[in-house]
Amino acid sequence: MNYSIVFYIIGWILNLEAAFMSLGCITALIYGEKAGWSFVVSILLCLVIGLPLTVRKPSSHIFYLRESFVSTALGWIALSCMGALPFLFSGVLHNPVDALFETVSGFTTTGSSIFTDVEILPRCILFWRSFTHWIGGMGVLVFLLILPPLAVGGRMNLMKAESPGPSVSRLVPKVQATAKILYILYVIMTLVEIVLLLAGGMPLFDSLTITFGTAGTGGFGIKNDSCAGYTTYQQVVITIFMILFGVNFNFYFLLAVKKGRQALQSEEVRAYLLIILAAILLIAVNIRGYFSHFGQAVQQSAFQVGSIITTTGYATTDFNLWPEFSRTILVMLMFVGACAGSTGGGIKVYRLLIMVKTVKKELRQLLHPRSIKKIQIDGKAVEHEVVRSTNVFLIVYLLIFIFSILLVSLDNKDLITNFTAVASTLNNIGPGLGDVGPLGNFSGFSNFSKLVMTFDMLAGRLELFPLLLLFMRSTWKKF
Amino acid sequence: MNYSIVFYIIGWILNLEAAFMSLGCITALIYGEKAGWSFVVSILLCLVIGLPLTVRKPSSHIFYLRESFVSTALGWIALSCMGALPFLFSGVLHNPVDALFETVSGFTTTGSSIFTDVEILPRCILFWRSFTHWIGGMGVLVFLLILPPLAVGGRMNLMKAESPGPSVSRLVPKVQATAKILYILYVIMTLVEIVLLLAGGMPLFDSLTITFGTAGTGGFGIKNDSCAGYTTYQQVVITIFMILFGVNFNFYFLLAVKKGRQALQSEEVRAYLLIILAAILLIAVNIRGYFSHFGQAVQQSAFQVGSIITTTGYATTDFNLWPEFSRTILVMLMFVGACAGSTGGGIKVYRLLIMVKTVKKELRQLLHPRSIKKIQIDGKAVEHEVVRSTNVFLIVYLLIFIFSILLVSLDNKDLITNFTAVASTLNNIGPGLGDVGPLGNFSGFSNFSKLVMTFDMLAGRLELFPLLLLFMRSTWKKF
Repeated sequence: MNYSIVFYIIGWILNLEAAFMSLGCITALIYGEKAGWSFVVSILLCLVIGLPLTVRKPSSHIFYLRESFVSTALGWIALSCMGALPFLFSGVLHNPVDALFETVSGFTTTGSSIFTDVEILPRCILFWRSFTHWIGGMGVLVFLLILPPLAVGGRMNLMKAESPGPSVSRLVPKVQATAKILYILYVIMTLVEIVLLLAGGMPLFDSLTITFGTAGTGGFGIKNDSCAGYTTYQQVVITIFMILFGVNFNFYFLLAVKKGRQALQSEEVRAYLLIILAAILLIAVNIRGYFSHFGQAVQQSAFQVGSIITTTGYATTDFNLWPEFSRTILVMLMFVGACAGSTGGGIKVYRLLIMVKTVKKELRQLLHPRSIKKIQIDGKAVEHEVVRSTNVFLIVYLLIFIFSILLVSLDNKDLITNFTAVASTLNNIGPGLGDVGPLGNFSGFSNFSKLVMTFDMLAGRLELFPLLLLFMRSTWKKF
Repeated sequence: MNYSIVFYIIGWILNLEAAFMSLGCITALIYGEKAGWSFVVSILLCLVIGLPLTVRKPSSHIFYLRESFVSTALGWIALSCMGALPFLFSGVLHNPVDALFETVSGFTTTGSSIFTDVEILPRCILFWRSFTHWIGGMGVLVFLLILPPLAVGGRMNLMKAESPGPSVSRLVPKVQATAKILYILYVIMTLVEIVLLLAGGMPLFDSLTITFGTAGTGGFGIKNDSCAGYTTYQQVVITIFMILFGVNFNFYFLLAVKKGRQALQSEEVRAYLLIILAAILLIAVNIRGYFSHFGQAVQQSAFQVGSIITTTGYATTDFNLWPEFSRTILVMLMFVGACAGSTGGGIKVYRLLIMVKTVKKELRQLLHPRSIKKIQIDGKAVEHEVVRSTNVFLIVYLLIFIFSILLVSLDNKDLITNFTAVASTLNNIGPGLGDVGPLGNFSGFSNFSKLVMTFDMLAGRLELFPLLLLFMRSTWKKF
């Protein structure tokens, strides 16, 4: 293990976090909130640790997959620990575990909250909470890759470790340029949503925070009823953008370079949209009796479906009260998740495509033992490596899922609450069913359970392996 | 597809079923029950269909994996349809779907029941119900393989299709001899349990039926409280034999040929016993407050753990009322299942071993990309074929599981009931939680849901693929 480079990267993550936190400070200045001081202190602490770590370039340039996974995992943990400080210093939370849970929930774009009443929180805290979604959505390391200091070798591995999906496709040959393009697309889409919400009469502060939550597919709201109080126009805009941010960014890149036809042929994007459409219709038919006309049922269904499949987690209604069929579809969508290479969480449509194709291939092979066709996606053969890692991902995912439920069950809450709370955190969604439904929150769990779910949120965002590697002894061996 | 051989095998299955049904007839004669006539009619119907199909040997001897899978799947369906007749003819059930559900539940050794009161049923019906467990446990095709008429080529494929586990090991080079050894071991262990129960003062009828349910890991009881009314000694005997019948029969064969050391080194058996031990202890500690002394908690925990992990499904207490931690462990055990090559259902310990080892290998490979170690079990490398089919099994299993829950949710029962009802039928266990807990039953579901779960029971018993192949068009193509 090349420790020097790991510390160097962690140092830069903290420096960057200090810069991000200054936005919380500015918000406090604008609204004249005393809680702004908590950001000043937190920024200083970030810099006190971050600057010494980045004073000199790392001694060794060895940078393999191991180093990138470890720096990603430790970097995210450092980011979360420091990001939790404003919650504690401002006094809105007293329990460090709560503050950590809330911050990890922010950066991992989960959106599960400890707060029972968010409307009494200072605006600077609300801003920071939502802004962590925006940072975590596209990724802090992807951001760092744009900057000159991280001009170390093997940076593709860093991107691999932080970006969702079984394989990362470079948009352009250079990693730095790829990272830049991703963030440019991200910023443009973010700005468009803000403008559209403002045009619909939403106040600026709401437009900013709600858009951050949408863009990162996070889900922290600034109202106790999440998005229920917004107008139909505003809800529709949010619905569309949730779904758009769940699309593989490769799709937008292809559109931008005028390869529209190729973009539209993406099997993953098609499957993603098909699943969304089917779910919206099935639920709308199932809940039509709850609304005055079918159009409203479709709109409400679309919002919740878009929110869950993209793992955003906003809500406009208490779907905890919907009939079992609709609830079951929503729970299923929790696991599907968004596209690979988007800001969303979950298992990812791409992985599901691989799984379904693997099954088809196996059945064909039972009938024709000598056939040796490879799995294809978008007309290209999927590498054996990717298929294998998808299978392993599924196994690890299930193991973490099952053990988490077991550990959380020690709190003696009902199985539906436990099951959906773990599903919601591991898939970075936000709300679940039962006690953690759209109107509930996670404050009722013990500290132990909160730590288990904090782990799950990080494991879900980093797609399991970087975090697991921390627990292997041979990871820490010197060369 | 070689239809002639498929029909020939189905014919023999029905002839064999007629023979088995005669035991129901004899029971009726002994107890002087009129319901015996329903068996006479059913036997005649079996022979009317079975005998013409077996009059002449099949014209073509082509017998590939496809033919064996299709004959296994169709054979089990025919077996179940005819086996349901005594329930209808005797008038204890009026709905054909109920009768099919109950029979499939019997043959697949599930033990989920439609009956709200089993104590009013005629003894011959109770006998038949339990005896279907015994037949289904070791397998009707394995039985047929012992008999001369099935001396067709490719019989190993038949055994593969019906025996649980990712790979079938021949105990001896000849398939017929292997089948014979399996049934001899099965009969001996069955007899020992009957004797031990009789020695403990259990009436003969109870000893027979309870043993059939234990041996096949089925779980149909003949009392409304399942096994709660039996003495501690009797419960302990049942516990031990449930666990014994969940062990890979390869283990007993090795013991019988005095290869004890090799038997004891089986990683699967060790893991199986370790899981059982851990689960018993964790639950016993968790429920100790429910009983007067710790020993009783251990005994009750052991019964339920043994019953669930082996997918038998007997109960001595309403574990639906236990604390959430214990309930969660039991739900987890539902999926673990017994050993491959036993009479139990579930995913099987062997497959879990492969999965866990796959994950370990993958993590090691992340750290040392050039290592190419193969997965080993019992010191031997596991074939790539087996690893791949295990992964595919997991995917198909999850897909069937998820879609079944979705379909069953149309009945608008709660998620716990739906989840555990599907888990219980797909893993061939019997009871679940909620409405289908140990004191509940499956009569509250709609016909549609019952058919979905009937499919799940068959899919679980035949390990998915034989049944799935029925839905592929190319299966039915002539050469």
